[in-house]
Amino acid sequence: MTIFAPNPDATATSTLSSLIRRRRPGFSLEAEFYTDPTVFAADLDAVFGRHWIFVATEAEIAEEGDYVTVTVGKASVIIIRDDDFEIRAFRNVCRHRGARLLNEERGSVGNIVCGYHQWTYSPDGSLLHAKDQPADFDKSCFGLRSVSVRSEGGLIFICLAAEPPNDFDEVSARIEAYLGPHQLTNTKVAAQIDLVEHANWKLVMENNRECYHCEAGHPELTCTFFPTYGHAVEDIPTRLLPAHARYLQAEHDLETACSDRGYPYELIHELTGRPSAFRIQREALDGAGESYTIDGTAASQKLLGDLDTPRLGRLSLHHQPNMWSHFLADHAVVFSALPLDVDRTLVRTTWLVHSDAVEGEDYDLDNLTAVWKMTNAQDAGLCALAQTGVSDPGYLPGPYAPSESDVDDFVTWYIERLSEVVEP
Amino acid sequence: MTIFAPNPDATATSTLSSLIRRRRPGFSLEAEFYTDPTVFAADLDAVFGRHWIFVATEAEIAEEGDYVTVTVGKASVIIIRDDDFEIRAFRNVCRHRGARLLNEERGSVGNIVCGYHQWTYSPDGSLLHAKDQPADFDKSCFGLRSVSVRSEGGLIFICLAAEPPNDFDEVSARIEAYLGPHQLTNTKVAAQIDLVEHANWKLVMENNRECYHCEAGHPELTCTFFPTYGHAVEDIPTRLLPAHARYLQAEHDLETACSDRGYPYELIHELTGRPSAFRIQREALDGAGESYTIDGTAASQKLLGDLDTPRLGRLSLHHQPNMWSHFLADHAVVFSALPLDVDRTLVRTTWLVHSDAVEGEDYDLDNLTAVWKMTNAQDAGLCALAQTGVSDPGYLPGPYAPSESDVDDFVTWYIERLSEVVEP
Amino acid sequence: MTIFAPNPDATATSTLSSLIRRRRPGFSLEAEFYTDPTVFAADLDAVFGRHWIFVATEAEIAEEGDYVTVTVGKASVIIIRDDDFEIRAFRNVCRHRGARLLNEERGSVGNIVCGYHQWTYSPDGSLLHAKDQPADFDKSCFGLRSVSVRSEGGLIFICLAAEPPNDFDEVSARIEAYLGPHQLTNTKVAAQIDLVEHANWKLVMENNRECYHCEAGHPELTCTFFPTYGHAVEDIPTRLLPAHARYLQAEHDLETACSDRGYPYELIHELTGRPSAFRIQREALDGAGESYTIDGTAASQKLLGDLDTPRLGRLSLHHQPNMWSHFLADHAVVFSALPLDVDRTLVRTTWLVHSDAVEGEDYDLDNLTAVWKMTNAQDAGLCALAQTGVSDPGYLPGPYAPSESDVDDFVTWYIERLSEVVEP
Repeated sequence: MTIFAPNPDATATSTLSSLIRRRRPGFSLEAEFYTDPTVFAADLDAVFGRHWIFVATEAEIAEEGDYVTVTVGKASVIIIRDDDFEIRAFRNVCRHRGARLLNEERGSVGNIVCGYHQWTYSPDGSLLHAKDQPADFDKSCFGLRSVSVRSEGGLIFICLAAEPPNDFDEVSARIEAYLGPHQLTNTKVAAQIDLVEHANWKLVMENNRECYHCEAGHPELTCTFFPTYGHAVEDIPTRLLPAHARYLQAEHDLETACSDRGYPYELIHELTGRPSAFRIQREALDGAGESYTIDGTAASQKLLGDLDTPRLGRLSLHHQPNMWSHFLADHAVVFSALPLDVDRTLVRTTWLVHSDAVEGEDYDLDNLTAVWKMTNAQDAGLCALAQTGVSDPGYLPGPYAPSESDVDDFVTWYIERLSEVVEP
Repeated sequence: MTIFAPNPDATATSTLSSLIRRRRPGFSLEAEFYTDPTVFAADLDAVFGRHWIFVATEAEIAEEGDYVTVTVGKASVIIIRDDDFEIRAFRNVCRHRGARLLNEERGSVGNIVCGYHQWTYSPDGSLLHAKDQPADFDKSCFGLRSVSVRSEGGLIFICLAAEPPNDFDEVSARIEAYLGPHQLTNTKVAAQIDLVEHANWKLVMENNRECYHCEAGHPELTCTFFPTYGHAVEDIPTRLLPAHARYLQAEHDLETACSDRGYPYELIHELTGRPSAFRIQREALDGAGESYTIDGTAASQKLLGDLDTPRLGRLSLHHQPNMWSHFLADHAVVFSALPLDVDRTLVRTTWLVHSDAVEGEDYDLDNLTAVWKMTNAQDAGLCALAQTGVSDPGYLPGPYAPSESDVDDFVTWYIERLSEVVEP
Repeated sequence: MTIFAPNPDATATSTLSSLIRRRRPGFSLEAEFYTDPTVFAADLDAVFGRHWIFVATEAEIAEEGDYVTVTVGKASVIIIRDDDFEIRAFRNVCRHRGARLLNEERGSVGNIVCGYHQWTYSPDGSLLHAKDQPADFDKSCFGLRSVSVRSEGGLIFICLAAEPPNDFDEVSARIEAYLGPHQLTNTKVAAQIDLVEHANWKLVMENNRECYHCEAGHPELTCTFFPTYGHAVEDIPTRLLPAHARYLQAEHDLETACSDRGYPYELIHELTGRPSAFRIQREALDGAGESYTIDGTAASQKLLGDLDTPRLGRLSLHHQPNMWSHFLADHAVVFSALPLDVDRTLVRTTWLVHSDAVEGEDYDLDNLTAVWKMTNAQDAGLCALAQTGVSDPGYLPGPYAPSESDVDDFVTWYIERLSEVVEP
C-alpha cells in the first residue's frame, strides 16, 4: 500500500539485496537485519537452512533410543541414537497427515509412534506399521525424512540442507586435535539451562563475540580474566604492570603444559571466508587458573578424559553461526543459540563433567554453574537493551571498537552467507 | 522483499490458484492451506462468506427478544427472535459510528441500544431513535444490516452473502424427513460448552470426518461403536465374528424400528459437488444401543418429540463446511466449528433435551455430557498435534487411509468452493 | 497472494490514496483507517513524524538532569533539562550499537550512560566518553541525535521532523495570552495516570472531540455542565428554560470576570487548514462554577499563578493531533494521546496544582482527580466498543450528528495531513 513521499528519517522499504550492498564494514548492521520478519525468514533459509548448526552433545543421548528434539526456526528435528548406536536425525513430522511426532524435549523410545493414528517408525526412520492400508500401500515410501547429522568429538551438528557444506570434514579434523584430550564422549550432562533472550539471534551472537562489555557487565566472569584483558600492550597503565607480568607468566606456563603433553595451543582464527567458519584458542586463566569458577579453582575433582593437571586454562571454540563453548580441564560448558522469532532466541547452556564424576562428591552443582548462570542472565539483559534500541526508528548503525573485531567478523560471515543466495 | 534463490525445502511463495491446481486427491493439503493468513482470509470469503453456516439452535432463542451473538471470522452477527416470533440476523455494528452493539454471547432485550450514543434499534432491525439529528435525517436509511438466516427443523443457519446458495431448500426438505420425529423446536438447551482448539478450522473438520483415530483416541466414544467399526467385511478377524453378528442384528432391528414408524433410514451422502453439501445416516449403537453414553443407555428418560422407543441408534448429520451432529432418541448433540484465526477454531457443543425434561429427575447432566466432553478434549489435543506438525517446514502432504474417504470429500468440497472464486 | 473475484462485502485491498479520495465529509472514516497496519505506519510518518506533538509538562522536569522518556509510535525520546536549565530532546538510542539508553519513564541523571558499553553523554547530548577507541575516533560525530522541542507556556511539544511546521510560533503567541495567567511553569504534578485504551489513536481523539456521548456516558463530568449543553437554543425544552437562564447569567459573569482582569475569553477555532491546528475557549461551569469536581467547588485552595478568583470556568485547549486540556483557576488537567499500535493508544493524564500547594492541606488528591479518573475509564470502554465495531467487516461509515462537528474537523485535518505526503 504505502506509496508516500519518503521521510528521510523513516525506515525505507528496502530489498534484501540493497541492504546487503549498503552494509558498512566496521559498523553495526542496519535495523532491518534485526527487526524485519522478511530478513528473519531469509536468515532461516540462507544461514540456518544451509549450514552446520550446533544442537546437542552426545552425552544427552547416551543410550539406544535416547532422543532430543530441537527447534531450528519453525522446524523441529529429532536427534536419536538408533539400535546400532548410530546418531540419526529426522524431521519431527508424521508422513501420514503431518502430526508432530515427539512432543517432549528429550526422552527414550523403542519406536517412534504417532499420537494421532499410530503410524509407527523405527529409530532408524523406517515406517514399521500403518494400520488399515490397502494392499498396494508401500511403506518404504513413507519413512521419516532424514536430516544430515554428525558429531565433532561429541558435539552434535545438524544441517537441514540436502547438500551440506563440504568443508566441515577439514574443520572437524583440525578441531579434533584440540578437543581430543577432553574426551567429550566420556562425559555426562551435569546441568542444562534454557534461556529465551528477547533479541534477534544475531545480537545474541554479536554480544558473545566481544568482551568490550565484560568489565562492567560481567563481574563474576571477569574474576578469572587478567585485568589487562582487552588492553593493547602499549596502553597498559603502570598500575597494571604487575598483573601483566602475571599474565605473561601464566601464558608461558600454559604453553609449556600443552607442549609437554602434545596438546595444540595456537589460535586458529577462520571466522570469515568459508561456510564452516570457526575460531579455537587455548588461553590462560587468572586466579587459581584452573576453571571458570569465581576463584578459578576446579569445579570438578574428576578431570575430563585422562588429563593429569587442572591447569590447562580455557580452550574456547566458536563456530559460526550459532555456537560458543569453553573446555576446561575439569568440565566443559557449551552454548547453542537457536532463533525462535525475529526478536527471540533460545540460548541453551550445557555443563558436561566426566562420566564418573559424582554430584556432591566430585563437584558441587551450584559452584559448577554459578559463573555462567550469572553471565547468561547479564547478557540476556544487555541483548534486550540492544534489541529495544535497534527497533527504534532513531537507531543508526554505529562503529565497532577495536576490541569488537570478532563481531565484525561475525557480521562479515553472515553477509557472505546471505550474498550467496540473494540475487543482486 | 525476499528475492533469493529458492531452497527446494523451503515453503515456496505460491499463489492460491497454484496451490489449488497442485492439490493431489487422496492426500492431505499443502501446509499453506492450514497456516497462511492469506489462505485464511480466502476461506473466510469463499467459504464462510458465501455458504450456509450452522451457528445456533432455536432452543437458544426461545422467547421474543432472546438473542445470541456469533462470530464468523471477524464478523459478529446477532441472531434474535423478534416480536413476531420470527428469527432475524443482523450485523452487530451500529450504523452511526460503528460501535459493537451487543457485547454478550446471549441475552434478552426489548430494543437494541448502542452503548456509545444510544442509537436504538427494534428487534426487526429498524432504527427507532437517534437523538439530536437534523430535521432531514432519514432513519429508514440507517436500520441494521440484515443477514440471511433460516432454520432447518430447529437448527439455525446464516449466510453472509447477499445471494445465498439456492440449493438449501432442497437439502432442507430431504433432511426434514429424518429430523422431524426428533422435534428439535420442542427442546431446551441442557448444556453448551465452547472449546477453542489450537488448529485451523479445516483440521478440526477433517478430524471430525474420520474415525481412523477413534480406536486409540476415543475410548469413551467407542464404547457404543461396534468393535468391527471401520473394518472391511472381508477383513474381520475370526475373534470379532460374534461382534459382527451382533452388529448385523442391531442394524436389522434398527431398520425394522424405522420402517415400522415410517422414519427414513438410508444413507444420503452428498458431501461434494454442491454448495450445500451434506451427509445423513441412521446407524445402530452397541451396548444398550440407546444413546451416546458410556453404557449406551438413554441419558434422558423424557424422549424427544413423540418417540416411543429409545432404540433408534444415532442419526448423524454432517453439513459442509462447519457442522456435525447426532440425534438420539433421548437427546441431540450438535456441533459448530467457527474459525477464529488461521490456527484457532471455536468448537461449540450443544446438548438438547425435551423441553419438559427436568434436570436431576429425567436426566443427569454429567452422564448426558460425559462422552462428548471427553471426546472433544481428546480431539482438541489431536488437532493441536496436527497444527503443530503441518506448520513445520518438514511437513509433506501424506496419503489418506481408505477409512478417511470423508476427509477427502471434505477437502474436495473445499477446493471446489475456492475454485469458484479464485481466478485460475 | 489473494487474486480472487471480490466479494462486494469484503474489505477491498485499497491504496491509501484511494482511501483518502473516497473519504466522505460528515461521515466516519472507512475501517482501514482504524485497523490497517499500513495506515498506522502512514499515521506515524505523516502525522506523528511531522507535527508538533504534546508529550509532557515543564513541571515534570523541574530541575537540571530531570528527564522523562516518551514513546511516539516506535520511537523513544528523552526530554531532559540540561545543566543550563534548557529543555532538550534526544533519540533514546546509543550511537555505538544502538542500545536503549534510559529505560525508566522518568528520573534524574548527571550524565546519560549507556548500560551496554558505558558510552557516556552529557545532558546536552554531546558524547563525553567512549572507552578504548583508536586515536582518530572523533567523539563529535557521535553525539545523541537531537529532536526539536519547545515549551508553550509550560506545555512541552516535540517534533520528530528535521523541519517542523513553521506556524507554531504564531499559535503559541496567541495561546500564551490565554494560558499566561495560569502560570503553568509555577506548578507541580499532583498526579499522573497512564491508561492504555484498546482503540486506534484516531478513535480516542474523535471520542474526545464530541460530547454527544456525555449525557449517558459521563455522569460525573456532566455535573458541572449546564443541562442545556449541546442543545440548539431553539430546541431547549420548556422545563430547561430556568437552567438556560442560569447558563446565560454564568456566561455573562465569566465574561465580566475576564474582561475586568484583561483575560481573553473568545473562542478561537482553527481545527483544520493548518499544520498546528488548535481550538481554545473559556466556558462557564455549572454548580459552584469553580472547577472540574463533582460539585464544582475548587479542588485546590491555592489558586494557580496570581489568580484572585476561583470563578474563571474552564479554559479548554485542543491541539491537533494528540492533545486536549482544561485549565481551571485552581488546577490544570492535561491529556496526551500517543499511539502504541494500530489498536492501542496510551492516554496520559496529568493534574497540575500550584507549586506551593500542599497535599492534604490545600487539596485532596481523590477529590482533585475523581471526575477525570471516572471519565477516562468510561471513555476507554466506549473507544474499545468503537474499535471492536469498526474492525467488523459489517461496519459502514455512518453520519456525524450536528454536535459532532469537531470530530469532522479532526478527520478533515487528518486527511489534509495525509494528503500532503501521499502520492495521488
